[in-house]
Amino acid sequence: MIVNMSDQATQLQIAHVVDRIRELGYQAHITQGAERTIIAAVGSSGRRSELEALKAAPGVDDVVAIAHPFKLVSRQARGARSVVDVGGVCIGGPEAIVIAGPCSVESREQIFSTARAVKAAGACMLRGGAYKPRTSPYEFQGLGVEALSLLREAGDETGLPVVTEVMGTEDVDVISEYADMLQVGARNMQNFVLLRRLARVDKPVLLKRGPSATVKEWLLAAEYLLSGGNTQVVLCERGIKTFETEMRNTLDLAAVALARELSHLPVIADPSHGTGKRELIAAASRAAIAIGADGIIVEVHPCPERALSDGPQSLDFAGFESLMLDLQKPLRAVFNPAARSVVAR
Amino acid sequence: MIVNMSDQATQLQIAHVVDRIRELGYQAHITQGAERTIIAAVGSSGRRSELEALKAAPGVDDVVAIAHPFKLVSRQARGARSVVDVGGVCIGGPEAIVIAGPCSVESREQIFSTARAVKAAGACMLRGGAYKPRTSPYEFQGLGVEALSLLREAGDETGLPVVTEVMGTEDVDVISEYADMLQVGARNMQNFVLLRRLARVDKPVLLKRGPSATVKEWLLAAEYLLSGGNTQVVLCERGIKTFETEMRNTLDLAAVALARELSHLPVIADPSHGTGKRELIAAASRAAIAIGADGIIVEVHPCPERALSDGPQSLDFAGFESLMLDLQKPLRAVFNPAARSVVAR
Amino acid sequence: MIVNMSDQATQLQIAHVVDRIRELGYQAHITQGAERTIIAAVGSSGRRSELEALKAAPGVDDVVAIAHPFKLVSRQARGARSVVDVGGVCIGGPEAIVIAGPCSVESREQIFSTARAVKAAGACMLRGGAYKPRTSPYEFQGLGVEALSLLREAGDETGLPVVTEVMGTEDVDVISEYADMLQVGARNMQNFVLLRRLARVDKPVLLKRGPSATVKEWLLAAEYLLSGGNTQVVLCERGIKTFETEMRNTLDLAAVALARELSHLPVIADPSHGTGKRELIAAASRAAIAIGADGIIVEVHPCPERALSDGPQSLDFAGFESLMLDLQKPLRAVFNPAARSVVAR
Amino acid sequence: MIVNMSDQATQLQIAHVVDRIRELGYQAHITQGAERTIIAAVGSSGRRSELEALKAAPGVDDVVAIAHPFKLVSRQARGARSVVDVGGVCIGGPEAIVIAGPCSVESREQIFSTARAVKAAGACMLRGGAYKPRTSPYEFQGLGVEALSLLREAGDETGLPVVTEVMGTEDVDVISEYADMLQVGARNMQNFVLLRRLARVDKPVLLKRGPSATVKEWLLAAEYLLSGGNTQVVLCERGIKTFETEMRNTLDLAAVALARELSHLPVIADPSHGTGKRELIAAASRAAIAIGADGIIVEVHPCPERALSDGPQSLDFAGFESLMLDLQKPLRAVFNPAARSVVAR
Repeated sequence: MIVNMSDQATQLQIAHVVDRIRELGYQAHITQGAERTIIAAVGSSGRRSELEALKAAPGVDDVVAIAHPFKLVSRQARGARSVVDVGGVCIGGPEAIVIAGPCSVESREQIFSTARAVKAAGACMLRGGAYKPRTSPYEFQGLGVEALSLLREAGDETGLPVVTEVMGTEDVDVISEYADMLQVGARNMQNFVLLRRLARVDKPVLLKRGPSATVKEWLLAAEYLLSGGNTQVVLCERGIKTFETEMRNTLDLAAVALARELSHLPVIADPSHGTGKRELIAAASRAAIAIGADGIIVEVHPCPERALSDGPQSLDFAGFESLMLDLQKPLRAVFNPAARSVVAR
Repeated sequence: MIVNMSDQATQLQIAHVVDRIRELGYQAHITQGAERTIIAAVGSSGRRSELEALKAAPGVDDVVAIAHPFKLVSRQARGARSVVDVGGVCIGGPEAIVIAGPCSVESREQIFSTARAVKAAGACMLRGGAYKPRTSPYEFQGLGVEALSLLREAGDETGLPVVTEVMGTEDVDVISEYADMLQVGARNMQNFVLLRRLARVDKPVLLKRGPSATVKEWLLAAEYLLSGGNTQVVLCERGIKTFETEMRNTLDLAAVALARELSHLPVIADPSHGTGKRELIAAASRAAIAIGADGIIVEVHPCPERALSDGPQSLDFAGFESLMLDLQKPLRAVFNPAARSVVAR
Repeated sequence: MIVNMSDQATQLQIAHVVDRIRELGYQAHITQGAERTIIAAVGSSGRRSELEALKAAPGVDDVVAIAHPFKLVSRQARGARSVVDVGGVCIGGPEAIVIAGPCSVESREQIFSTARAVKAAGACMLRGGAYKPRTSPYEFQGLGVEALSLLREAGDETGLPVVTEVMGTEDVDVISEYADMLQVGARNMQNFVLLRRLARVDKPVLLKRGPSATVKEWLLAAEYLLSGGNTQVVLCERGIKTFETEMRNTLDLAAVALARELSHLPVIADPSHGTGKRELIAAASRAAIAIGADGIIVEVHPCPERALSDGPQSLDFAGFESLMLDLQKPLRAVFNPAARSVVAR
Repeated sequence: MIVNMSDQATQLQIAHVVDRIRELGYQAHITQGAERTIIAAVGSSGRRSELEALKAAPGVDDVVAIAHPFKLVSRQARGARSVVDVGGVCIGGPEAIVIAGPCSVESREQIFSTARAVKAAGACMLRGGAYKPRTSPYEFQGLGVEALSLLREAGDETGLPVVTEVMGTEDVDVISEYADMLQVGARNMQNFVLLRRLARVDKPVLLKRGPSATVKEWLLAAEYLLSGGNTQVVLCERGIKTFETEMRNTLDLAAVALARELSHLPVIADPSHGTGKRELIAAASRAAIAIGADGIIVEVHPCPERALSDGPQSLDFAGFESLMLDLQKPLRAVFNPAARSVVAR
């Protein structure tokens, strides 16, 4: 931490800050600048947020953090990248993975037909909501345990491990019985009670980035899981909230690359929520893989225009098949200027 | 809802949309424009989100909502403004109220001295955190039940009703025993499991706006409480997340006025989180009252530079006293141009 | 500047950074921490951005600025607050001022009737656009010189100094002939060519904050004016762009208070653009004055529903009169808990 | 346009709106809903913004646009995608293009060595700033005409067409003499005076997206160019401003795909400004190509840590060469679940 004293700070105020830094178990290094004094707090006593409170001390302008606040999730904490095994599917390994399925499980027929279609097209995991976080209380809230049971059956029949969202601590046990992976939704990314509970579960967790969470906050949410004992964590970028209104969210693909720079955890992307527009999903999926994502999670529905949730951003079966083909296509070639001499001005 | 057909939509596609609108229990009114057709879905069958899924139907460009999706929270739903009584303090009445206290309850002495100081300066309710939502797992997480008990005692001694945050459903019962009002923190605004639980509690709820929630989403979160049976709801604007980095959040004061336009619920403001800067709190508090807020909630600590959380944005006792005096001061006078004739060019 | 070395930086890399800091005319102070080394660059050689480029040097994690980058606009640069005199109206003095008028000058009758109405209600300056920045090329672009001339006449008749927007350097001369104050619109806040030109004009400038400008960037835009020779600068907060869609912009009132903390320049607020909603303007204006704004600028039109631009956010004459009355009303009283003993539980 | 009447609107108010719609040259179609009346204004009289002013008419809740406001830039306006020829380099053709060079031209040696290096590695155009838009007046502002001349020479020697930014109308003529393509910087995207001037120039224009511009506003800025007569326009996504602080901007890659959906114009991406971090540029460039960008523009400097501007986000020569190799690499393979039966649970 750097304590940046005001240019009018007195010697007494400087001494006071130095004392407090030492009291908190850090060393204080003073640099007397042309206009102002800065004091570096050196060490790692773990009372970081108390250091930050010095912002409130007289004569202090600002307190600036130097080191990142996360530990276990950081790339340095581990020699190699983490690989998370979900029912035999390795996320974070050499190959990218594709998770697909409906936003909500709506009926036996819907989830079975979808499971078969996405399996046939090449998906390796099945998604489907049983408990749905909905902005309005008047919208479809999910089928609950019935949905869990259908999802499990569909996953078993097709050989696809299943992932579903857990909205509260009460549901952790029952969902753990049915699902291979538990998803923390974007709006629950900083539901710390839920994170602490999931830290004690022996199931992989898919942690979505909150719509207004910085990459740092996202990694700190993951730190709750790791520091509580669960190291099977996969991060998922699903778009952030910006001023743009043509798309549901702004898919922050560079954050996928950044999260992989800062952390050893696998990172996947959700182009369905990330764009909210069916017609952009294939392109965004390719870009996600190109930027280094360990996989994608995509919404697929037998008949999107009749979906009880997220219809506009769901692919139908043909759309998903075509997406899977798109993922095989090579990158567009780059113009070779050597050939340009021929057509030169 | 307005279904906006593409300019290349066929008659068949239009007919298909009309059929689906009727199937969902709405009437369909077609307007044939110069370039495109629009179809209004008229009625209130309650299958609104299924209507929205028509965005995914062939030939459809967009589906646009016309009416607001909230019902019980809307101003029209009630003749008069709501007043919420918290242990004898009326929020939403003719007078603005001031809630004050530390971010976290840290010790008996800290909470008692703070309670006495804020009471003496004119606060009418006491705040204090027992369970703290912290971005990092390594930060102070609150004293739990011990804090609740201290808060209750301090409130009783000073005659101040108390409000404290509830982070998860497990804590609702114990907090209800101790507190007069339960706060839903900004990061939990869309924790629907928690909202549904609080809808069944006979305690007033203070619902903070999420850092990236629109006013509409905020009111829909309140709708979860009202539609579940709890009408004692107070809204609290506490700043939203924007690109600005000089302040912790952007205090959206116009949202206070807008929420009071759209809803009958009382609305207060939190200038401490809203700005994150002690030196702006008095000015922001005055502005909050001026724009129509039914009160403010402010962080006060005996020694902010030693606070275990939120020190930089906490007032000390003298600062709080001075804030209370500031709230009495008249608005700055407006220049009277009639006097200008004398000094005219 | 603080250069934050990576935890894997070598001694050679540290020495390289130190050399470069000295080469740029600064002193280098090294602090060896528990995990990493930080190097403070001390001095003021004016090659600040070259220091920042050290972010690209091997072994460097980050370069963090400590001091604010602005000089002449900073509060420290001047003993007292600045007062800007616009044709006899003092902005930044003890009284708040009100500037009013239509978005665009549309006709002789429109601007004269508006000028008379706002003067009668108490405005002390007249606004009106002659050159309009419009998002679409197909929208009304202003009447140009004709509008300038009408605005001048209307100002003269009513004794109101006039302010109008200048969109490009070519128009500076002609607008300077007619107007008492030149406005830089929000979208031109970082049009540095225009700022440099206006720095050489002997007219006061009203500098609107860009819709995505931080307070720091806004003050640096003002620094272009002051450092180029024009000290008659008034800042204007007019709302920033956020995810909120119910209002045209998010009026950042705390930024008014912050700008007045950081700078000696007067700061006014524009609740018309700031909210985009007529029904919120009076409340937002009161809040602006309460938070310390030196005045407000408001759009008024004889018949808003026929305005060629900004109709939805324009007040009619009655609305403006009522706003002026609202600005006289006292702040809402704060509940006195002493009286509470009577109604105590 | 849809005029959405309030649920308390009177018949008189509805009649008034209908009259006004007709007066403006549109037809009015009324739909009487369960709770409210909506009125569609049908036609294309070109008085769209006057229709919008009806928001201010009594009894009106909102006026909602249905059709997109741009015409010439829209995909429908042209049968095929546009290809812009810049000195023999086709942007928007089958191959993606790479533009590279320093942020600013700093010296003869710097620009020549860079031009040769990027040419050797495969770039097909050279970039370099002569007039620099800088946030602070105390930062390096560019070498002006000297830089233009050096850039031209370096381009000629290497056979690379050159692009450089034009900051104001005064510089258009001189820059047109030297450059093959004129860039409108992000902060000038809505400098309508500049856009109107460039509409009359016979040079291709590179139009960067503003840091807080929606895709719609960006396309409308392009519409200024096309409607004014210049159809040689290339769009460039360069990151938007969000709450994220770890990266300089949020590179909105999905906006590249969306702009190509909505418009026939070529779209390139700028991963240097888009991320502000050297280590993310290669990954972001790959993603840009994968999502459909017609090319990228990248900052390259012989010694980034000594760059006078944008050092932290500039690649050195080796970094650029490695980027060009990265663009040849295939997409990561997608896990094939068929193989999964072998390792099944």
